[in-house]
Amino acid sequence: QSSVTVYGRLNVTVESVKHGDEDRQGEVNNNSSRIGFKGTEDLGGGLKAGFQIEHGFDPTTGTAASTFWGRQAEVNLAGNFGQIRLGTFTPDSYYATSDYIGMHNHETGDSSDALYGFSTYVTQNKVGYVTPNLSGFQAFISVAEGVNNPDPTPDLKKTWDLAAYYDAGPLHLGAGYSKRDEEKQFAVRGLYEFGAFTVGGLVQRVSEPVIGDRTYFRVSGMYAFGANELHLNVGRTGEYSDLKDTDALQWTVGYNYNLSKRTKVYGYYTKIADDSGIYGGDFNAFALGIRHNF
Amino acid sequence: QSSVTVYGRLNVTVESVKHGDEDRQGEVNNNSSRIGFKGTEDLGGGLKAGFQIEHGFDPTTGTAASTFWGRQAEVNLAGNFGQIRLGTFTPDSYYATSDYIGMHNHETGDSSDALYGFSTYVTQNKVGYVTPNLSGFQAFISVAEGVNNPDPTPDLKKTWDLAAYYDAGPLHLGAGYSKRDEEKQFAVRGLYEFGAFTVGGLVQRVSEPVIGDRTYFRVSGMYAFGANELHLNVGRTGEYSDLKDTDALQWTVGYNYNLSKRTKVYGYYTKIADDSGIYGGDFNAFALGIRHNF
Amino acid sequence: QSSVTVYGRLNVTVESVKHGDEDRQGEVNNNSSRIGFKGTEDLGGGLKAGFQIEHGFDPTTGTAASTFWGRQAEVNLAGNFGQIRLGTFTPDSYYATSDYIGMHNHETGDSSDALYGFSTYVTQNKVGYVTPNLSGFQAFISVAEGVNNPDPTPDLKKTWDLAAYYDAGPLHLGAGYSKRDEEKQFAVRGLYEFGAFTVGGLVQRVSEPVIGDRTYFRVSGMYAFGANELHLNVGRTGEYSDLKDTDALQWTVGYNYNLSKRTKVYGYYTKIADDSGIYGGDFNAFALGIRHNF
Repeated sequence: QSSVTVYGRLNVTVESVKHGDEDRQGEVNNNSSRIGFKGTEDLGGGLKAGFQIEHGFDPTTGTAASTFWGRQAEVNLAGNFGQIRLGTFTPDSYYATSDYIGMHNHETGDSSDALYGFSTYVTQNKVGYVTPNLSGFQAFISVAEGVNNPDPTPDLKKTWDLAAYYDAGPLHLGAGYSKRDEEKQFAVRGLYEFGAFTVGGLVQRVSEPVIGDRTYFRVSGMYAFGANELHLNVGRTGEYSDLKDTDALQWTVGYNYNLSKRTKVYGYYTKIADDSGIYGGDFNAFALGIRHNF
Repeated sequence: QSSVTVYGRLNVTVESVKHGDEDRQGEVNNNSSRIGFKGTEDLGGGLKAGFQIEHGFDPTTGTAASTFWGRQAEVNLAGNFGQIRLGTFTPDSYYATSDYIGMHNHETGDSSDALYGFSTYVTQNKVGYVTPNLSGFQAFISVAEGVNNPDPTPDLKKTWDLAAYYDAGPLHLGAGYSKRDEEKQFAVRGLYEFGAFTVGGLVQRVSEPVIGDRTYFRVSGMYAFGANELHLNVGRTGEYSDLKDTDALQWTVGYNYNLSKRTKVYGYYTKIADDSGIYGGDFNAFALGIRHNF
Repeated sequence: QSSVTVYGRLNVTVESVKHGDEDRQGEVNNNSSRIGFKGTEDLGGGLKAGFQIEHGFDPTTGTAASTFWGRQAEVNLAGNFGQIRLGTFTPDSYYATSDYIGMHNHETGDSSDALYGFSTYVTQNKVGYVTPNLSGFQAFISVAEGVNNPDPTPDLKKTWDLAAYYDAGPLHLGAGYSKRDEEKQFAVRGLYEFGAFTVGGLVQRVSEPVIGDRTYFRVSGMYAFGANELHLNVGRTGEYSDLKDTDALQWTVGYNYNLSKRTKVYGYYTKIADDSGIYGGDFNAFALGIRHNF
């Protein structure tokens, strides 16, 4: 009766990487490989119960993520009213914006977006609600548990996360907002398909308690022909209002060859110019990879 | 040929909890969620080989149990003679008594039985034997490996565990006994079904090396109508013979609404009065939850 | 569409073991139990993508291996050209030699080969290539990533691993070579089947940077009748050229009763004479076990 689906992805690259002034080095790297289990039960009357648990691991070393089911661990109940979710899950504000336009390698590994503001990215102890899809519009809201700490440790405040999607033919829009106490981020995203071309863009405004505000822009483009895809990705953040010279730039060119819907081989070059070191420092990598979904 | 079954449970509550004099706090909590793999092979002539491994995790944080397969990891061989088990498994003395009458939420989470004596509850390095079911009667015996420690560390003695079940129509009886050196517990349990009502009870006698003996009583009742269940659970322990003022009381009222055999939504209130703090201290919680089996 | 296979093995023994001059002790022991997930996708044109991840655990305690997917975590691409592998996998030089003749209990547990030279046994951060099978001949080559360490920590050099198999009717030959900087091992293996008898042998030459070279010999034999197997295994290593009195001897007698292709019960006695203590010291064990594949 029970029907559990086992699914996942292995995504491994062989890279030549260079950190700052260090020697260039050969590496075998993981790009967010994972395995998961999921299932849905039809309860009748339009009601459905479901679960999904997802585990990240590094196939280059065999190492499990330190929080084993940290990618996702939720139980949910859905009906005409929408969906209620309990547990551990990725902020929908991230899926609706940065992840959505990360087309060349699923926002994973060394070429994923390094400059998006992650300080309000909370996955644990969450309750969420998803609206039904209303003519292409869908909204997500969730709140993560706060913690009453004994004095003098400050309490950890609740984190709120909102996201919205709107799809109309070739046009795809999204927005995300997160807030925990004084930390905030707000982003809007667009993606447009015209024939073989797909173009996406993102603007994010980030507020941090000490270092102040900054604005981040990103554009991504894909040209697809047959089994081939050519990709370009450029992201640029301005400096924090109260921490000067923290602007940074990342750009990536990529090529994918789709052996099937599940399997591709690919190559990319990515470069981060980050003089301040606040986003990990100057970095570049040439990579060849294989991604296999199952 | 191989047929492995993947099974499990997600059980998550949203609670308002209060510990002692601390402020009341909102929490998203796990109630013994797990995933497991099991299978059986028919060897012919009434002989069967089987395995079961079961992993506990916390979906509210995605965290794996510190002993990954600590819930169960056994290989067994069964025939007309009964069953032989090797590996890691829950004491049958617990399943036969406390767990059996914990009807409202499977003896999991904040409303599970806090006052049962767990000091001889050993799961690892075990060899067990289960008798065939003889007209409703079945017995379980197991022994857990001791450890020869170098002086002056004392050796860890073997732990013995015995359990018995007897089922006759609406009447269900059980008993459990465990012993490791001077630590002992013995419990008897009864459960009776009459129409929409089910009533269970338990008495346990616990012996500890320093703090002495105590006696624990518990009753649980369920009234079921349609998809609804009303539950009441009351447990009371007397004080340890050599540690005064260690008596405690727990009571729980619960309501379950079964959306299907696999999925329910529920609510409960549980309260522990434990002035001595030996069972975790005064505590109460209001909870709303969803439990989904797969 | 996706078809993931769940597979594994539970292999548990009850043993009476004796380490050096310590008291004999009863133990419940794991013998490399594991669970894995694997799958293959046909890409057309003779091309195939596949993955395999394998996790080792100890059913006697429920404990997971410290590197969760450390037994295997690879993604591969195969075609007429052979196979390319990326990730974590066992050195083929080991499978082609020591593992191949370890017939009585799959080279697992207390009776596995203690004297084989493991210092170049590297599983992580690997890229490998496997030739097609050419009339019974097949070769494997892999290289594991080195690490550029900052001075004064020495760099970790790349590890190279080569293996070859040749099968011709009842004759099965293999060889393995591994090298990391000054550490090297080379081994040749043969196995011959004649009727109910199977006989295997192995010679390995090991080179270590400080303690020098040594030579290791091993023979193993099996006599099979009906569901029964009788086994004998003897391994003897000479001393290291620059560390005298480091010779050692291991011998094992075993009996397997195959309840099916997947399940057996077995017993063995193994004894290691290792005065120097360099291979773990003097040791012997009587064991009774059950192995169940799924």
